[in-house]
Amino acid sequence: MSASFETWRDRFERLRSHKAFELTVITIIVVSALLIGAKTYEEEVSRFQAAMLWLDVAVTVFFLVEILIRMAAEKRLRDFFRKGWNIFDFLIVTASLIPLDDSEMVLLARLLRIFRVLRLVSMIPELRMLIAALFKSIPRMGYVVLLMFIIFYIYGALGSFLFASVDEKLWGNISLAMLTLFQVATFESWATAVLYPTMEHYPYAWIYFLTFIFLNAFIFLNMMIGIVLDVMQKESLAIELETGEGEAAELHGLRDDVRQMRDQLSRMEALLDRQRS
Amino acid sequence: MSASFETWRDRFERLRSHKAFELTVITIIVVSALLIGAKTYEEEVSRFQAAMLWLDVAVTVFFLVEILIRMAAEKRLRDFFRKGWNIFDFLIVTASLIPLDDSEMVLLARLLRIFRVLRLVSMIPELRMLIAALFKSIPRMGYVVLLMFIIFYIYGALGSFLFASVDEKLWGNISLAMLTLFQVATFESWATAVLYPTMEHYPYAWIYFLTFIFLNAFIFLNMMIGIVLDVMQKESLAIELETGEGEAAELHGLRDDVRQMRDQLSRMEALLDRQRS
Amino acid sequence: MSASFETWRDRFERLRSHKAFELTVITIIVVSALLIGAKTYEEEVSRFQAAMLWLDVAVTVFFLVEILIRMAAEKRLRDFFRKGWNIFDFLIVTASLIPLDDSEMVLLARLLRIFRVLRLVSMIPELRMLIAALFKSIPRMGYVVLLMFIIFYIYGALGSFLFASVDEKLWGNISLAMLTLFQVATFESWATAVLYPTMEHYPYAWIYFLTFIFLNAFIFLNMMIGIVLDVMQKESLAIELETGEGEAAELHGLRDDVRQMRDQLSRMEALLDRQRS
Amino acid sequence: MSASFETWRDRFERLRSHKAFELTVITIIVVSALLIGAKTYEEEVSRFQAAMLWLDVAVTVFFLVEILIRMAAEKRLRDFFRKGWNIFDFLIVTASLIPLDDSEMVLLARLLRIFRVLRLVSMIPELRMLIAALFKSIPRMGYVVLLMFIIFYIYGALGSFLFASVDEKLWGNISLAMLTLFQVATFESWATAVLYPTMEHYPYAWIYFLTFIFLNAFIFLNMMIGIVLDVMQKESLAIELETGEGEAAELHGLRDDVRQMRDQLSRMEALLDRQRS
Repeated sequence: MSASFETWRDRFERLRSHKAFELTVITIIVVSALLIGAKTYEEEVSRFQAAMLWLDVAVTVFFLVEILIRMAAEKRLRDFFRKGWNIFDFLIVTASLIPLDDSEMVLLARLLRIFRVLRLVSMIPELRMLIAALFKSIPRMGYVVLLMFIIFYIYGALGSFLFASVDEKLWGNISLAMLTLFQVATFESWATAVLYPTMEHYPYAWIYFLTFIFLNAFIFLNMMIGIVLDVMQKESLAIELETGEGEAAELHGLRDDVRQMRDQLSRMEALLDRQRS
Repeated sequence: MSASFETWRDRFERLRSHKAFELTVITIIVVSALLIGAKTYEEEVSRFQAAMLWLDVAVTVFFLVEILIRMAAEKRLRDFFRKGWNIFDFLIVTASLIPLDDSEMVLLARLLRIFRVLRLVSMIPELRMLIAALFKSIPRMGYVVLLMFIIFYIYGALGSFLFASVDEKLWGNISLAMLTLFQVATFESWATAVLYPTMEHYPYAWIYFLTFIFLNAFIFLNMMIGIVLDVMQKESLAIELETGEGEAAELHGLRDDVRQMRDQLSRMEALLDRQRS
Repeated sequence: MSASFETWRDRFERLRSHKAFELTVITIIVVSALLIGAKTYEEEVSRFQAAMLWLDVAVTVFFLVEILIRMAAEKRLRDFFRKGWNIFDFLIVTASLIPLDDSEMVLLARLLRIFRVLRLVSMIPELRMLIAALFKSIPRMGYVVLLMFIIFYIYGALGSFLFASVDEKLWGNISLAMLTLFQVATFESWATAVLYPTMEHYPYAWIYFLTFIFLNAFIFLNMMIGIVLDVMQKESLAIELETGEGEAAELHGLRDDVRQMRDQLSRMEALLDRQRS
Repeated sequence: MSASFETWRDRFERLRSHKAFELTVITIIVVSALLIGAKTYEEEVSRFQAAMLWLDVAVTVFFLVEILIRMAAEKRLRDFFRKGWNIFDFLIVTASLIPLDDSEMVLLARLLRIFRVLRLVSMIPELRMLIAALFKSIPRMGYVVLLMFIIFYIYGALGSFLFASVDEKLWGNISLAMLTLFQVATFESWATAVLYPTMEHYPYAWIYFLTFIFLNAFIFLNMMIGIVLDVMQKESLAIELETGEGEAAELHGLRDDVRQMRDQLSRMEALLDRQRS
């Protein structure tokens, strides 16, 4: 590596970690987000179409330059791709390189450009921490979601076999039935649009719906309580260990002191005994 | 018992606890679940009817063989029926032996076959633990459910006496009234479809509905908080006792040491006293 | 008091605390509840009207006798009225003495008889404890309810001034507006039936509704968290004090022992000093 | 400052902190609130218009006098404006000085007068504490709200691009789409009025809605749990430190005692050694 290359890398590194640079990037992300929002007002788009296209190109170029600077600031290119958030940024920036005026892929290009707003998450550390915390809670929730899915599947199959003749649109097959059950689980028109029409043909249909709702609520409640307790237990154990350790060390030291004293006393008693004799 | 029988039992036991065997069972359960799901798409069923019937027989036979292997792997048949999950599996497998082509019981056979998906719960230890935790929480919730039922019953009777003339379908008798109240408790169209039509005849009906909603929310909230606190208290007590015991033992040992020292000192003092005299 | 009177009181007291007596009372309460429920099925009532009237009288008389027995079991009548649950039972039993066949007060008599189901709460200790816990949490929730009421009042007045011209039925006066806001707070048809019709006249009405929903959700969430933490803090403080006290006593005893030893040592040192001189 | 002025200030201060004064202010606030509520019943207003106008002037004058007394009770006027609640009261009282009979600003005057009800919050210490606690929890919730907004924005843009042709009123531009998504997030008619009409044109639209609902629920749940744990951890740490400190001090004192004893023993041993030689 030549010395001039080293100097350039240092310059890029200084630039990357500069507060003003970060603020500029966040500003450009917000501008890009507003640009996307503005495009949804169709009458506006037609009036300022030229300006918007120009702005879009400018934003895309800026993001490209920014990610190249951040790549150049690393010692080796491999280091850049080690961090998950860098890969995330790289994918978003690359995806938005699809030209907007290409008439065939214009919708896809537009949709991909929306995800540039997500770069806000990778730029603000507090949001990055929030997302990391969310990802950590996924395994904890995984088995509950599996259990819920099994219940939805069984009730979906039951509903599809029993009620398909009542309303083909709601219970026609297991996919439709599970969607209907999800609607019931969110309590949306579950009685007026789903339960009562079904009860006209099957007066005991309320058993199906009430057991489903209770089962769902019961599992959800227990899951909530379970997660709160699970996390809390770990926290309080950690605290106990921490404060407990300090005290335990103190107690241990005290016991050592006392044992040294006992040894000393034994020696003294032996001396006194010898004196007497 | 002959030696060859013993050998066979050992072989079955090894087979039963083999990882590949478990994975095969889980796969067959998933296949059986997909089969059930596929049957809800009626046009598909008619096309592949022969293949599906054959697959269904194959799955049923597999489950039968699997449960017989697990029975043969036990020393005594009684041991098999001691575990709740085994009885659960046995019932599900036995129930699905009803032939599907029997035209009279075809619906029942289909419905019972759906519950084979539940065998996923008995095969995956994490789900089994979840279900065990759910069962443990039932007694804790029992009295709250009883209290809720009493409130629903009283409001149901009141509603049936007062509003039966307004809407026979919603308030005709106490069962209908309680179902309507359940709909109100889930906030589904409670104002537009239940409260406002009632208020046209009884302008003070809002008192009935608002007290009901507040009472429900109040009890539910208190129950949630109560359960969280109840479980937490037990947990934290357990932790306290555990960490406390370690410390208490340390303290107790220390006190023993100190008392031994005091005795030693008393002996020495006596020696010195005697020396002096 | 004569001796025979004493004997009678003892007999009544034994009867009152007999398990079979309690079970009989609970059974009669359940029968009375079923009777009330049956009356809501009008066709049934007309067929078994005579039997039902007879049963009703029997239940009423039984409750009267039961409460008289419990009164007679007390040393003084004043003791009976000291317990809140006794007053509760007395009021319910007295209220149901209104005759059912009195054509003018038949509806009132029926309504009052419904509350006999509540005697189940006063008979089952676990339910009595639940209710006591609910009452204890009322003051804690009082100020939050007051704050919520103020917000409902202000938004109600605002809504009534602004939107009365849009829909007289929803926003006609402050009472109607507050009821509409309660419907919005339960998310029942708040967008389709309340927000969108209003936005047709006032395009910025969404500000009013969204701030209201966020304010409500925010206060409710904070209240929930506040109550959980409040109760938990008290619990954990109590536990800390309890376990802490045991340890503190142990530590205190240890320190006393050590101080006694120090005094003993000082005496011994003095002895040794005198010896030397 | 002259002596007579001092005397007056003392008198105002005594008056301000008098219980009866506080009660009078609270009563007047409630009267003013009822007055506002009464005005929403239009037929009433027309009948008692004169009385109401007179009452309104009386209330306004009372509030003005009250705030002047509280200003005069302070040593310096600057002290009055140091407390946030005083500024709050001052703004509300000043704002309601706009005359009600000024035909042009009558609506604004009415709206501003509604906020006089909020003075109840500044008068009752418990409500003031509740509001203070709410304000303290704002920063904790800020980043979660930002994250939620980003998700709403992205889904809003996606929905607007994809579904604008299905229903111009629901998905016409990003603002309308975000409002529709908020309706979906509250589960209000989300299936019957939003999902099903969209699915008629885009059969895979359920992916958009279900991911949105799960993402929302997931973030909301994690936020709730996060906040509860966050506050709890702080609380329990504080308790640990408090109770821990007492014990730590006790242990520290004990160790000092033991070390003094060891020094004493060392001196005694030296004495004994010297005696022997």
